[in-house]
Amino acid sequence: MALSKRITTLTSDASGGWDLFLRARAMKAAGVDVTELTIGEHDIRTDPAILDEMHRAALAGHTGYADIPGIPALRDEVAARIEAASGVKTTRDNVLVTPGGQSGLFASHMALCDPGQNALFIDPYYATYPGTIRGAGAIPCPVAARPENGFQPDPADIDVVAAGGAASLMINTPNNPTGVVYSRETLEGIAEVARARDLWLISDEVYDSQVWEGRHLSIRAIEGMAERTLVVGSMSKSHAMTGSRIGWVVGPQEVVGHMINLSTHTTYGVAGYIQDAALFALRRGARAEEEVAAPFRRRREIALGVLAGQNALRLVPPQGAMYLMLDIRATGMSGSGFAEKLLDECHIAVMPGESFGAAAAGHIRVAMTIEDSAFGNALKKLVDFAQAQI
Amino acid sequence: MALSKRITTLTSDASGGWDLFLRARAMKAAGVDVTELTIGEHDIRTDPAILDEMHRAALAGHTGYADIPGIPALRDEVAARIEAASGVKTTRDNVLVTPGGQSGLFASHMALCDPGQNALFIDPYYATYPGTIRGAGAIPCPVAARPENGFQPDPADIDVVAAGGAASLMINTPNNPTGVVYSRETLEGIAEVARARDLWLISDEVYDSQVWEGRHLSIRAIEGMAERTLVVGSMSKSHAMTGSRIGWVVGPQEVVGHMINLSTHTTYGVAGYIQDAALFALRRGARAEEEVAAPFRRRREIALGVLAGQNALRLVPPQGAMYLMLDIRATGMSGSGFAEKLLDECHIAVMPGESFGAAAAGHIRVAMTIEDSAFGNALKKLVDFAQAQI
Repeated sequence: MALSKRITTLTSDASGGWDLFLRARAMKAAGVDVTELTIGEHDIRTDPAILDEMHRAALAGHTGYADIPGIPALRDEVAARIEAASGVKTTRDNVLVTPGGQSGLFASHMALCDPGQNALFIDPYYATYPGTIRGAGAIPCPVAARPENGFQPDPADIDVVAAGGAASLMINTPNNPTGVVYSRETLEGIAEVARARDLWLISDEVYDSQVWEGRHLSIRAIEGMAERTLVVGSMSKSHAMTGSRIGWVVGPQEVVGHMINLSTHTTYGVAGYIQDAALFALRRGARAEEEVAAPFRRRREIALGVLAGQNALRLVPPQGAMYLMLDIRATGMSGSGFAEKLLDECHIAVMPGESFGAAAAGHIRVAMTIEDSAFGNALKKLVDFAQAQI
Repeated sequence: MALSKRITTLTSDASGGWDLFLRARAMKAAGVDVTELTIGEHDIRTDPAILDEMHRAALAGHTGYADIPGIPALRDEVAARIEAASGVKTTRDNVLVTPGGQSGLFASHMALCDPGQNALFIDPYYATYPGTIRGAGAIPCPVAARPENGFQPDPADIDVVAAGGAASLMINTPNNPTGVVYSRETLEGIAEVARARDLWLISDEVYDSQVWEGRHLSIRAIEGMAERTLVVGSMSKSHAMTGSRIGWVVGPQEVVGHMINLSTHTTYGVAGYIQDAALFALRRGARAEEEVAAPFRRRREIALGVLAGQNALRLVPPQGAMYLMLDIRATGMSGSGFAEKLLDECHIAVMPGESFGAAAAGHIRVAMTIEDSAFGNALKKLVDFAQAQI
């Protein structure tokens, strides 16, 4: 009577970043005034108009089992959104509604990777990636995106890792934790490797509404990629609906068909009234998404101001998403050493780069998720602290 | 670039029961007045008081990421419920809140079975069971519960299958599709085999509030079983919250700890406002559950009346859950042949026994999920139809 190897080794390589997060929470609980710049949670709540629509749908009786693939109207709306963004013909048959983006990432690996196969992903990475791949029985293979390339992944590096044989490659643009938006050149290079090495692409695009410089491009839009790409999206970041756990996977109809079957056996669908609320939210259009994104756009500007004219911290240009990636190597400290000391001395909690993979060593990630003036003040303290370390 | 074997073979053995279900739906969509006695969906909706509480919680700001294991108050409430029912000490550390019972069944197999290991389950079975096991990479091994034993599983039969080596055994009481409630003798026999063969037990108890004869007993309550048992529960059947997708897994703290980690990588938790609503619903106590169960209790009585004094159909004593299992072997037809002809001639849709496994051949399952008088009338037509086949 043993536990499965899968579950006991799911996060065997997890770094200490979350220890810091928990220590900050414990300090706060003990009454210390800690400024948390750690996680990707909006400082606003879901718009009450969306919640009212949810309640209306629930009272109207949409409380029974909903269609497992998602309600047709929501699948249509997501298809239209993805088609408009990518130019690739997309119908409801290409769409599976999932209980959140994380569930979509997991289901995608379940669909594309057999146990023991290699599944590639780009380092630095969102903390759940390696465990998500292991959960599906595949072997997580990081490909480093280097700071000297502004954390744009180099297709040649992907090719080297893929040469060992691989089923899939997961990418994430706009990127958490680096804030980088992949360029067309990067995506075309990745597409070329994917075709040459016969890889499936899993493209995490949950930050697609938070782009500050340039333009988000989905790899699904690159010639010949729609047939080998699953795009994972979500209402979490775009509509401040993190807790509602609703997202989607968009891909080839055959794959989606199998994933619907997988959903029947793993999640049994998503609450109908949440789907109705998501449909309502999507139909409000781009302006509603811009409103949710606006605070991060403002804070990014604040950060550019605070960080100008100092040399202790180098900012990786934040092109998208709700984070700043700061290179702290001028201090000679590790990301984790810096973050621990910052928490102790300034009561500011940030995530050590190492918690997002080896490629982010010597960096810290700052979430822009507190009110503007508090955010500006915390950043100023952070700069003073960094300068004092040199 | 192939799909995973897991996903392409997930339901390779699926029988034709769902074809009939879909055909009935298509007939209905085409305007035919079909009486559907197929699926386990209440004919009532979730109580508006529960939905109002959900809305209140959402408007109060419980829309961000909720604690992945479940909110502490709900975990405590579920622990108290399970402790009261089983007499086994249970705390929040034994409880993981999941997005529905199906998700709990899948996660349990993910936690307990390594790929390639045998996972036992009792036939007849709820339709998703084999695919759920395959989804976790394990091999589904049915153990027939025989009609001549009133569909109580025989521990000796389990022992024979377990002798080939197995990681787990999944049971379901009160049972879907048979309506059988496992006796203490059955459960003690199963427990003995589980200990002797060193099996994990996964006990699907989602119908625990729908017991018409005798008393539901959880195998977790049997001496020495709490340490090797995961109980899967849900708000779906007990509180008519099927669409809300909220349930739980209760088991040893170590297992639950790993399953929390798995949740982080697969579902990322359950909406906080749904958890608040579930907590509110559970705190209303047993009477609220009895109200939800009452229609099935009434319809069971109606069925006993309609089926008395005829010999074409033999009723498996319905001790619990929302279904009747009818032995139609006196007609000389297969369950599927009977159901197809019944749909064509009487426009009544029932599920062929075969869709729940080989052990239910020669039977049909009737869901008691329509209004009382319509249900009684449909059953009368069904009896007349069966008599005409002899």
